[in-house]
Amino acid sequence: MENGTPDITYLFEPRGLAVIGASGDDTKIGNMIMNNIVSTGYEGGIYPVNPKGGTILGKEVYRSISDIDAVVDIAIISIPAHLVYDAVSECGKAGVKFIIIITSGFSEIGNREEERRIVDMAVRHGMRVLGPNVFGIYSGKMKLNATFGPRDIVPGNVAILSQSGALGIAMIGKTAKEGIGLSTIISIGNKSDIDESDLLEYLLDDQDTRSIFLYIEGVKDGERFKNTLMRVTRKKPVVVIKSGRSKRGALAAASHTGSLAGSDEVFDAIMRQCGVVRAESIQEALNWCKYLSKAPFPTGDSAVIVTNGGGIGVMATDACEKYGVKLLDDTDLTREIFSPVTPSFGSTKNPVDITGGATAQDYHDALLAALENDKIHSTIALYCATSSFDMESLSRMMEDIYTRYMDRGKPIIFSVLGGEKVEQAVNSLRSRGVPVFSDVYDAVGTLGIQYRQYHHQNDLVEEMPSADIDDAGVEDIIRSVYEDGRTFLLAQEAQKLMRACGISMPRAGVASSLEDAVSIADDIGYPVVLKIVSRDILHKSDAGGVALDLESSDELIDAYQGIIRNARSYDPNAVIDGVEVAQMVRKGAETILGARIDSSFGPVMMFGLGGIYVEVMKDVTFRSWPMARSDILEMIKQTRSFPLLLGVRGEKRKEIDMIVDTMVKLGVLLDKHRSISDIEINPLVAYELGKGIRAVDIRVILNEEGGSKS
Amino acid sequence: MENGTPDITYLFEPRGLAVIGASGDDTKIGNMIMNNIVSTGYEGGIYPVNPKGGTILGKEVYRSISDIDAVVDIAIISIPAHLVYDAVSECGKAGVKFIIIITSGFSEIGNREEERRIVDMAVRHGMRVLGPNVFGIYSGKMKLNATFGPRDIVPGNVAILSQSGALGIAMIGKTAKEGIGLSTIISIGNKSDIDESDLLEYLLDDQDTRSIFLYIEGVKDGERFKNTLMRVTRKKPVVVIKSGRSKRGALAAASHTGSLAGSDEVFDAIMRQCGVVRAESIQEALNWCKYLSKAPFPTGDSAVIVTNGGGIGVMATDACEKYGVKLLDDTDLTREIFSPVTPSFGSTKNPVDITGGATAQDYHDALLAALENDKIHSTIALYCATSSFDMESLSRMMEDIYTRYMDRGKPIIFSVLGGEKVEQAVNSLRSRGVPVFSDVYDAVGTLGIQYRQYHHQNDLVEEMPSADIDDAGVEDIIRSVYEDGRTFLLAQEAQKLMRACGISMPRAGVASSLEDAVSIADDIGYPVVLKIVSRDILHKSDAGGVALDLESSDELIDAYQGIIRNARSYDPNAVIDGVEVAQMVRKGAETILGARIDSSFGPVMMFGLGGIYVEVMKDVTFRSWPMARSDILEMIKQTRSFPLLLGVRGEKRKEIDMIVDTMVKLGVLLDKHRSISDIEINPLVAYELGKGIRAVDIRVILNEEGGSKS
Repeated sequence: MENGTPDITYLFEPRGLAVIGASGDDTKIGNMIMNNIVSTGYEGGIYPVNPKGGTILGKEVYRSISDIDAVVDIAIISIPAHLVYDAVSECGKAGVKFIIIITSGFSEIGNREEERRIVDMAVRHGMRVLGPNVFGIYSGKMKLNATFGPRDIVPGNVAILSQSGALGIAMIGKTAKEGIGLSTIISIGNKSDIDESDLLEYLLDDQDTRSIFLYIEGVKDGERFKNTLMRVTRKKPVVVIKSGRSKRGALAAASHTGSLAGSDEVFDAIMRQCGVVRAESIQEALNWCKYLSKAPFPTGDSAVIVTNGGGIGVMATDACEKYGVKLLDDTDLTREIFSPVTPSFGSTKNPVDITGGATAQDYHDALLAALENDKIHSTIALYCATSSFDMESLSRMMEDIYTRYMDRGKPIIFSVLGGEKVEQAVNSLRSRGVPVFSDVYDAVGTLGIQYRQYHHQNDLVEEMPSADIDDAGVEDIIRSVYEDGRTFLLAQEAQKLMRACGISMPRAGVASSLEDAVSIADDIGYPVVLKIVSRDILHKSDAGGVALDLESSDELIDAYQGIIRNARSYDPNAVIDGVEVAQMVRKGAETILGARIDSSFGPVMMFGLGGIYVEVMKDVTFRSWPMARSDILEMIKQTRSFPLLLGVRGEKRKEIDMIVDTMVKLGVLLDKHRSISDIEINPLVAYELGKGIRAVDIRVILNEEGGSKS
Repeated sequence: MENGTPDITYLFEPRGLAVIGASGDDTKIGNMIMNNIVSTGYEGGIYPVNPKGGTILGKEVYRSISDIDAVVDIAIISIPAHLVYDAVSECGKAGVKFIIIITSGFSEIGNREEERRIVDMAVRHGMRVLGPNVFGIYSGKMKLNATFGPRDIVPGNVAILSQSGALGIAMIGKTAKEGIGLSTIISIGNKSDIDESDLLEYLLDDQDTRSIFLYIEGVKDGERFKNTLMRVTRKKPVVVIKSGRSKRGALAAASHTGSLAGSDEVFDAIMRQCGVVRAESIQEALNWCKYLSKAPFPTGDSAVIVTNGGGIGVMATDACEKYGVKLLDDTDLTREIFSPVTPSFGSTKNPVDITGGATAQDYHDALLAALENDKIHSTIALYCATSSFDMESLSRMMEDIYTRYMDRGKPIIFSVLGGEKVEQAVNSLRSRGVPVFSDVYDAVGTLGIQYRQYHHQNDLVEEMPSADIDDAGVEDIIRSVYEDGRTFLLAQEAQKLMRACGISMPRAGVASSLEDAVSIADDIGYPVVLKIVSRDILHKSDAGGVALDLESSDELIDAYQGIIRNARSYDPNAVIDGVEVAQMVRKGAETILGARIDSSFGPVMMFGLGGIYVEVMKDVTFRSWPMARSDILEMIKQTRSFPLLLGVRGEKRKEIDMIVDTMVKLGVLLDKHRSISDIEINPLVAYELGKGIRAVDIRVILNEEGGSKS
């Protein structure tokens, strides 16, 4: 980049902007954008550009961007695709910082070269490009609606990034309708240059943004995306919808955006690791972001349900279990708190049932009892419309309570079920920002998401683990493999690699004589296995060149002689290099450890347990590297067969810490030595505490390029 | 029952009804009910009863039910709890058929005796009781709203049964607001007599009812419930919400209704087996029932998505995979069908993308292309609000298309995303019965439920399997166990039981001499195991009384002598009855088969696979007995480790059919001989095809009563 990279702030907070392709024809996108910019109160410079000149909406039209004698931070381009290159080139000369290419007809329909050509040129001019194929940007801070979507956007604290233009435009309308205030909504389209990570960098420190919703279909630079998300979620919640989850959906997404949707399993694991909340539907994503942009954080885990109906209380209890909301479980305490506000035929147990006869005042008193108590940290308030109830005072009370306790770290969430009057009140309360839902699961789910974010932000940031690896040794091995014209390691090389990492394998040595074999076996300890070593004998078993489970020197001597005899009769001309004497691997818990460079997310780790069951049940978990030791442990615990490591049927606990150590070694190895694209230890046998682990079979693959990270 | 049981039809279609506790005071429930009955057009006799006399709402008030000289099919009772018994007794004398006890204060707060006393008396009078603790009944056919909920109910084809009164009342309002037409809504409350099965019997043949929503918290007679559901779901869809899914929710439900919520896992499996759709939230249950009460059935599986936005198309594709909706996957066919109605930069692949520029007319043309084609069986129509779109003509078109194709077996479901205008149109269309959703997942989920019902109704009803069991032999074994004062079977008894069922166990015989042992072993075939048989030696292994894996008569002779020697030195006074010679069980696929009498659902079957993994991973499935062979196979396939039975790592397929046979035998055995409460075969080892199965360990428990079904 010749001219450095402009500060992303100018994209969200431009001092002046040009609309290239501004038009007086109100069926044209260039006109819609101008109209939105002019009429929503943007106070920076607005410069329509059109070779025809004249005026649009009272603004002088410039024939060329070079005619503008003022700061232009953004040029919005809405002209036919074949004219875009020249226009961008003009912008470069005029000192524009950001180009927003509204125009479609580029990589999304296969026209990659032109898109590439434009971006390369823009970058050479020190500019950055948003798009092509985008709907524009809204920035609440600047009162700037530079989109061709609906004009009225409610300013607020939710930021939306959408890879889909059509969805983005529709969401503008939807958020306005639901009273969801936005700090920004921005289209990422083809991501030819600026991608979600660039935009997240701005949102990370943006005071106006309190929650972020990303709609994406694919990720290009996954490693950067992940690292950015890790930082962002420490400060504010991020909700992601990644469509193309299903195999078929992924195909549809690929044809639609041109970006490859990675394996959803890996994506999902990495999002969890990043503390990102993954939504399925637009409605739930917006519900969550809206609530999270406003609601206070709780100060603890204990939630209480207050209800006027038992049935709905039970449903909320089910929902709490589903969404991980912890219910206060202290009957004495809840009796003490709620008996003054509960009728005798109600229930002071959690869920607290103030019964169908409860008035708005009774409901208010019960909620106040919950909100005023330090041992209750969040409140779920449920109401079933009864035959005699006053929705008006009820909704006044709800708004009043919510507003009063907002600043006191006391989240409260409402669910009201009923008819026309109830729905009207719910809609009106929602549009004013009160977290009211008509469905119990929606309400509790939203609180559950808040608790996830609460725990994520409060979790200590652990140090990333390191491992002592003989890096020079590793590079030697890699070099010799490449020199041999291979990209896979032979057994001995893989063993050397494991030794360089300090990962224990079955002990072994190559004997050149019978005496030698006995002395190696004495050293290793019985039982041992013998294998013929000869470059001329590839299928050792077929040649009778393998003997298992030898328990004494007598057995070893017999077997050694047998093997030599068999080998000679199998191929009288074979050169015999020796006989390998190796420790016999005892039975233990079989695990599988993997590490590979994912095309989109970089180093990805895999753990599985259970030998044959890994293949059959797919009982494996994934994470992105680097990760803390506690995350590795979490990853191991997440497998369904984890109890096998704790010991079942009277067995003892296995060497779990040593498995974690081995994962760390693989992660560090892969991360440092990027020539390695794939390592798999299968099985890694774990024995009971004090008895160690053994990496039995190792498969290592190098990448074709032969490059190394530096 | 002295006087027989009245026909349940009179509960839903009463010729006359009395309201005991009718009141002129409009804060009283007796008044609300009267008001609803009188003002909604019920044409049968309406007889308010109150000792004060006078008139209510223009109706003469009777001082006692005995004063009414007309047919009274139902008496609705809304008087204080302590007066209910006498009132019901009066009803009995007056020839009333059904009692609806609105009054609460009975078993739901622990007052079980009074409730029992009332019901017993009612039944003696040939009456049946709904309640206590109910909100009443609405019957669309009779224009009868005999509830104390909202007056206005939209007549239609959805039937709602609610165990929760508060939820039921709130749902009355909610359905009216959403234009969900009801054939009935009825409260089941404490279920002291009439339960959901009784009500389902009516709904089964009710022409007005096309879908049924049950809200329940617990089931009492699960076997009858199951059998009734099986019949109902063959004719119409049933959606169930059972709250108390979570452990904590189950506790809350138990304190609320007094009925025990069974294990949710078993309940869930049985509901699936019955073809019942289980919903989680009220909103989805109502969405599904509404749609299913109106929409035509498809004639095949192939669905097509038509969209104006790629992103939302991908989301719908994901949703189709989630909900089991099969997308037409024939690129040539969809190109042929849709290229005339798709712009060149759109996509004729499924999802068909007619692009953001599509007008209402373009959308109409594309939908028509789908609806008119015989190879497309259902259509998912998606629309994202664009900057220039005409919601009015769009919504006219949607309603028109839906109405036209309703009678032609062509389901179509819409999802429209956008702002205020869109929401208004969606609400208005929904209230007129057009299946429009604002969320793609809601839309596709609803279609998915329809497909489940479609397949369920179209599946052939298979014959229930039978098994040839030596019933007399079984009863002999059971009798002798009871006579011995035990409720568990000893090993030999369990083996005898298995033989009576024709379930193969390892072959075995008891030898009284060495020669005998050799001859038995020759007969069985080596390898064999030997075990000392002595009532004085309980711990055979400790006594050195067990020898495994004997491969020849030489090994057997050594071992036999050793065992006798060990036994004698272990206890010189022990009486040795002989030595058991048994087939050595080879390794194979370990399964676990169980059958037990569930307290609520009767015979319940369990299948699991994988030896130790059953315990660790809980990889087991449940079903209710009886079940067809195909269901048993389905149940086996549903375990995650099923591939082990198909053979992995080059192994051959195992004896799956013989496992099914064994399940059938266990089911028939348990069902016929109800003294048996629990049978578990663990492991049942399955070998490769042709090599059979072996029930290795059997545990059988009898119930305490010693009774038998007859």
